[in-house]
Amino acid sequence: MKLYDWTPAPNPRRVRIFLAEKEMEVELVQVDVLGGEHKSEAFLAKNPSGKVPVLELDDGTHVAESVAICRTLEAMRPEPSLFGTTPFELGRIEMANRQLELEMATPIGIAWVNGPIVGRTGRFQQIPEAKAQAEGATRKFYRRLDRELGERPYMAGEQFSVADITGLCMIDFASELVALEPDRELSNLWAWHERVSARPSTKA
Amino acid sequence: MKLYDWTPAPNPRRVRIFLAEKEMEVELVQVDVLGGEHKSEAFLAKNPSGKVPVLELDDGTHVAESVAICRTLEAMRPEPSLFGTTPFELGRIEMANRQLELEMATPIGIAWVNGPIVGRTGRFQQIPEAKAQAEGATRKFYRRLDRELGERPYMAGEQFSVADITGLCMIDFASELVALEPDRELSNLWAWHERVSARPSTKA
Repeated sequence: MKLYDWTPAPNPRRVRIFLAEKEMEVELVQVDVLGGEHKSEAFLAKNPSGKVPVLELDDGTHVAESVAICRTLEAMRPEPSLFGTTPFELGRIEMANRQLELEMATPIGIAWVNGPIVGRTGRFQQIPEAKAQAEGATRKFYRRLDRELGERPYMAGEQFSVADITGLCMIDFASELVALEPDRELSNLWAWHERVSARPSTKA
Repeated sequence: MKLYDWTPAPNPRRVRIFLAEKEMEVELVQVDVLGGEHKSEAFLAKNPSGKVPVLELDDGTHVAESVAICRTLEAMRPEPSLFGTTPFELGRIEMANRQLELEMATPIGIAWVNGPIVGRTGRFQQIPEAKAQAEGATRKFYRRLDRELGERPYMAGEQFSVADITGLCMIDFASELVALEPDRELSNLWAWHERVSARPSTKA
């Protein structure tokens, strides 16, 4: 199998960490995102959304979207489970992962596309009010996470899961490239960040 | 089990259709969303995001987020499968469902919160440029769906899946309440809409 990757982006990192947690290896193929390769006809045939990552299976078929790729990998190698196994675990991990994506990663993405790095490319109409609103929503969600991580060690409960991978990759991206680092006073969130970052997989 | 529901909203409808496809019955509890019950302390204890739907299991635990609830139900009653069973099917259905959510439902939601119905409540800062951008993104995605539905009968391939439920509920919501009905010339998309709407479950 091959993973179409672009090292600096947060979503391919989610899959690389997932693979490392599963002790699975695939060939990594760098896509020239700065050169627009992900919008080429050849790449759009792999993923009509024109985004990395994309998994290519040995029969030449493709699965795109980081969580969809991870779920494919989970079905190929169920242990250690990162999506849960009982109906309740499956539901709670997906709930945590989705709330992180819809209520934190989505506003981080809006702040990113309306920020200076994307703005300089001229590829995206800039809406400063949308950026400010998204920054407020992100910081509000950080405070919620800080409260919840005072009551449990991981995003979805007692066990490390795909939701922790989502949280880590998006918070690191927000901190490094979107000027949205969580406030240092959010000590439960930072303790979680340290706990998760200590896993060797996160260097993948 | 109980489902905390609010009939007019698109996300609880997704779960009601899913339950009907599975021939499962749960007690439906209407939440007084117009009165703000979903933001009350009692409801936030069920779902910290303050949103419907929420599934309450018989032991009093909760799962929120429509797709997380559906996945819980799928694990309880695997047949007929609406998420797929092989690694590839699981991946492709999740890919289709996520692209519908992230690239269509998300801009529909932005157009909705910046539209006249939410605007009149005064609860959300209105950004007209964000509304216009989201409308353009939604219409662009409709055109993509029309092309893809010329090549396959359902959102994720040959079989009806949870991605069709997502597509139907969001397009109906966009058409009825966000002034974002797909153009009539998108004949493949409308043929799909007719095919899916003919299922008895969609009346749930």
